[in-house]
Amino acid sequence: MFSKLVNPKSIAVIGASHNPAKIGYVVLKNLVSHNFKGDVYPVNPKGGEILGYRVYKNVEDLPEVDLAVITLPAELTLKVFEDTAKKAKFIIPIAGGFGETGKKGKEMEKYILEKAREHNARIVGPNTVGIYIPSTGVNTALVVPERSRFPGDGDIAFITQSGALGLLTMDSVSLYNVGFSAFINLGNRVDVNENELLEYFGKDEKSKVIIMYIESFKDGKEFMKIASQVTRKKPVVVLKAGRTSRGGKAASLHTGALGGNDAVADGAFKQVGVIRAYDEVELVDYARALAYGKPIMGDRIAVVTSAGGVGVVTTDYIESKEHGIGMKMASLDEKTKRKIKDEVVPFASVENPIDMTAQASDDDYDGVLEALQSDPNVDAILVYALFQTPLISEKLVDIITKWHRKGSKPLIVGSIGSNFTMKMAAKFEENKVPVYMSIERAVKAIKVLRIRGKYIERWENE
Amino acid sequence: MFSKLVNPKSIAVIGASHNPAKIGYVVLKNLVSHNFKGDVYPVNPKGGEILGYRVYKNVEDLPEVDLAVITLPAELTLKVFEDTAKKAKFIIPIAGGFGETGKKGKEMEKYILEKAREHNARIVGPNTVGIYIPSTGVNTALVVPERSRFPGDGDIAFITQSGALGLLTMDSVSLYNVGFSAFINLGNRVDVNENELLEYFGKDEKSKVIIMYIESFKDGKEFMKIASQVTRKKPVVVLKAGRTSRGGKAASLHTGALGGNDAVADGAFKQVGVIRAYDEVELVDYARALAYGKPIMGDRIAVVTSAGGVGVVTTDYIESKEHGIGMKMASLDEKTKRKIKDEVVPFASVENPIDMTAQASDDDYDGVLEALQSDPNVDAILVYALFQTPLISEKLVDIITKWHRKGSKPLIVGSIGSNFTMKMAAKFEENKVPVYMSIERAVKAIKVLRIRGKYIERWENE
Repeated sequence: MFSKLVNPKSIAVIGASHNPAKIGYVVLKNLVSHNFKGDVYPVNPKGGEILGYRVYKNVEDLPEVDLAVITLPAELTLKVFEDTAKKAKFIIPIAGGFGETGKKGKEMEKYILEKAREHNARIVGPNTVGIYIPSTGVNTALVVPERSRFPGDGDIAFITQSGALGLLTMDSVSLYNVGFSAFINLGNRVDVNENELLEYFGKDEKSKVIIMYIESFKDGKEFMKIASQVTRKKPVVVLKAGRTSRGGKAASLHTGALGGNDAVADGAFKQVGVIRAYDEVELVDYARALAYGKPIMGDRIAVVTSAGGVGVVTTDYIESKEHGIGMKMASLDEKTKRKIKDEVVPFASVENPIDMTAQASDDDYDGVLEALQSDPNVDAILVYALFQTPLISEKLVDIITKWHRKGSKPLIVGSIGSNFTMKMAAKFEENKVPVYMSIERAVKAIKVLRIRGKYIERWENE
Repeated sequence: MFSKLVNPKSIAVIGASHNPAKIGYVVLKNLVSHNFKGDVYPVNPKGGEILGYRVYKNVEDLPEVDLAVITLPAELTLKVFEDTAKKAKFIIPIAGGFGETGKKGKEMEKYILEKAREHNARIVGPNTVGIYIPSTGVNTALVVPERSRFPGDGDIAFITQSGALGLLTMDSVSLYNVGFSAFINLGNRVDVNENELLEYFGKDEKSKVIIMYIESFKDGKEFMKIASQVTRKKPVVVLKAGRTSRGGKAASLHTGALGGNDAVADGAFKQVGVIRAYDEVELVDYARALAYGKPIMGDRIAVVTSAGGVGVVTTDYIESKEHGIGMKMASLDEKTKRKIKDEVVPFASVENPIDMTAQASDDDYDGVLEALQSDPNVDAILVYALFQTPLISEKLVDIITKWHRKGSKPLIVGSIGSNFTMKMAAKFEENKVPVYMSIERAVKAIKVLRIRGKYIERWENE
C-alpha cells in the first residue's frame, strides 16, 4: 500500500533550487547523499541542471513518478498541486501555512485533498518534514547536516505527528548508532494517517517494532482495531503527548489536534496491547528493548555487576514500586550459586546482585552468564558492562552478545561511562543487543519487556 | 580540618612500583599526569627511581608528609602501618581484605585505627579507591585511563561509600565536562566518615554543592545535626542506596552496612533540608542545577522551544503529578505576550509553551528571554536550545548564558541531539549553565530547584 512511498522508483522535487540555502536544494542534496538509487526529476521554471540532475521547467513535462515532494510555499504549492497529482502516486507538500493557521488554511487543505482524490494520489502532510527511509535513501527532511545526524538502517518504524520532535529524537540516538526502518511525519494529516501506516508497518518485515508520537488520534476506534491486530505480531510503543489538560491545549496550538481523557487512553492502550512511553528517550529505549530483546515471562531478575554500588541501586529500582518497577530480584538456585562460587568467581558475592568486584574479567562474565542460563528461578538477566577496570576488554561486548543471542534468558545490558563506553554501546547496538547508559534506563527496559510478556500471556489465555 | 588531605604539600606512596601494571605505579603516574605540585615520596625496598622520583627504601626514612597512600595488599599494609602513622597526617590504605571479609578483617581494622589514633593520624578507607581532587592534582583512584575519564575542577564535592559507582558517575559526566571540587571514597570507613566531610565541605568555598552516595549512615543523628547546618549554606543531595529491604541486603553484602527504614530516612532528609536523588544520573543532574542555578520561588514555569512537540511533552511533564513534577505552566502576562508577538517573533505561538517554530533565530531567543524577565507570572524558565534548524548558531549558547547570569528568573536549559549538541552542552557546562540532554531530565532539574526554594521559604519563616 505504501511501498511506492517508502521505496519509490522515481522522485520529483517540485521547487528544486540552485541555491544551496534553499529547501528545494537541500532535498535534492539529501537524495544524493543518502544514495537514493531511483530516478530524480527536479522541477524549476529556470531549467538547467542541479547536482547533476536535468531540471524540468514544468510539472506537465514530468513523466509519471512514485513520489513528488513539493518544496514551495503554501500558495505556490496550491498552484502546482493538481498537475502534480496527475503525475505522482504520493505527494509530500512540505510547506506550513495550511490548516494550522486557521480557516483559510483549512480551505486550502480541502482543495489539495480533493485534487489528490480526483487523480488517485495520496498526500503525506502538508506542514511536514516528510519522510526518511534509510534503506532506500529517500529523505525529504530539512536539518543542518553539520549540526544533526541521520540514523542508519534498522528495525524501528517511527510514525510521528511532530516532525521536529522526531528529527531531534533520531539525531540524539545517532550518538550510539540506533537504526530505523522508516520515519514518517504526518504533519497536518489531511490524508495519510497513523492508522494506515500502523497497519502497513505491522506487515512490513523490516520493521520489528513501531513507535508513534501522537498528539491526537485521527480515529481512535480505528486505531484500537488496527493496534489490536498489529500488537499480536510486533510491539507498538506510543508517546501520547497532550495527556494533561494544559498539554492538550499546547497540542491543539501545535497541530490543531484535540486530545481526549488520558485515563481512558491509558486503558485503551492496555486493552489493545500498546506499550506507552512518556518522552523521547523512553520511546526509543523501549523500542530497542522490544526490537532486539525477548519478552520477559516472569518477575524474577538476576543482576550481574562488577560495581557493588551499581548492584545496590539497581536492586532498589527493581524492587521498589514508588521509585522503581515493582519487580523482584531472583533468589538464585543453590546449584547456580555453587557453580559461580566454585568454578567461576570465588571472590564474588553470589547473592543476587552478583557482584564480581573490580577484579572481574571477561571470562568471569562469560562463566556467570552461562551459569544463569539454567537457573529455573531467573526470568531475565540485567548485566552491567563496565569497561573501566583492568581485566575487562572490548571482548566483553562479544561475550554478552553471544549470551544475548544463544541464551535462553532475556537479557538487558547497562553501561556507565564516557567516550570509550559510548563506543562499546555503539557496538552493542550494531549487534542488536539492548544497551542502556544508566541504571534507571536499563531497569525500565526490563519493565517494558515484562509488559510485553504479560500481553503475550494474556493473548495465550484468550 | 581536612585541608591537608585535599591539598597536601607532600604525598608518600608506600608500595610504589616500577611495574606500570601495578597500582603502586599507577598512583604515582596519576599524580604526575594530574600535575600534583607538592613533594612526592615513593617507598619501595628496591629503591631507585620511578617516574623521576627518588624512591625511599623504608617508611622510617621518610620525612613527615601530609598524606600517605598505601598501595600494598592488606597483610603488608598492616606491617607498614604504624611506621606510616608516625610520618603522615592522613593515610589512605587502598587494599580490600579488611572488615568487608569478616571477623579477621574487622580485627585488622581495629589495629590500624588504634595505631592511627596513637600517632594522631587519620585514615580514609581501607578498601577504597581513595580521593581525587582535580584542583590540587591529588588522585589515588585506579581506572584504565584509555577507557575512563577523570573530570576537571568544578563546584561539586562528592562523598561516596562506593568507589566504583563514584568513578563510573564521574566518567559518564566527563562526556560534557562536568567539574568536581573533590571526590572522596569512604571505603570501609574505619575513621574518617561522611559527617566530618559534610561539615568540612559545608565550609569549603570551592564546593557549591555536596553530593553523597550512602548505603548506611555512620551516625544518623549526627548526620541530621550537621546536614541541617550545612543545607542552610549550600545544597546537599543524597543518593541513599539500599532503600528497599532487598537493596538493603545487597548493601550489607557490599559494604557491610545496615540501612534503616526508608520512609523514616525520607522524612529525616526533608526535615534537615537534604535533597534526595535515586540514581547516579539524578545525583549529578541535581548537583548541577543547584550549583549553577537559582532556587525557584514559585510553581509557574515558562517554556521556550523551537520544536512544538518538545513543548507539548514538556508541558505534560511539568503539569502531571503521576508522570511528572506536578508544577504549573505559567499563564503569561498580556504585556509579555504582546511584546513577544509585536516585537520579537510574530510567527510564534505566544501561549506558554512559547513555540518559535523551526524559523527561530538566535535573536528571537534573545528577545523572548528578555520579554520573560519582567513577567510577574513567571517563576522560572525552561528554554530548549535546539541546534538543528538553519537560523540557530553557536551564539545561542552565549545568549542563553547571558540571561542565565544577568536575568532575574532561574533558568534551566534542555537540549536534544548528538555530536554537535554534545559540544554545545559542554560549552553550557563550562559557562555553568545547567543543561540537560532530555526533556525529563530538564524538567526534573526544575523540580529540584523548586524543592530548594521551598526549603529556603521554610527557613525564612522559622
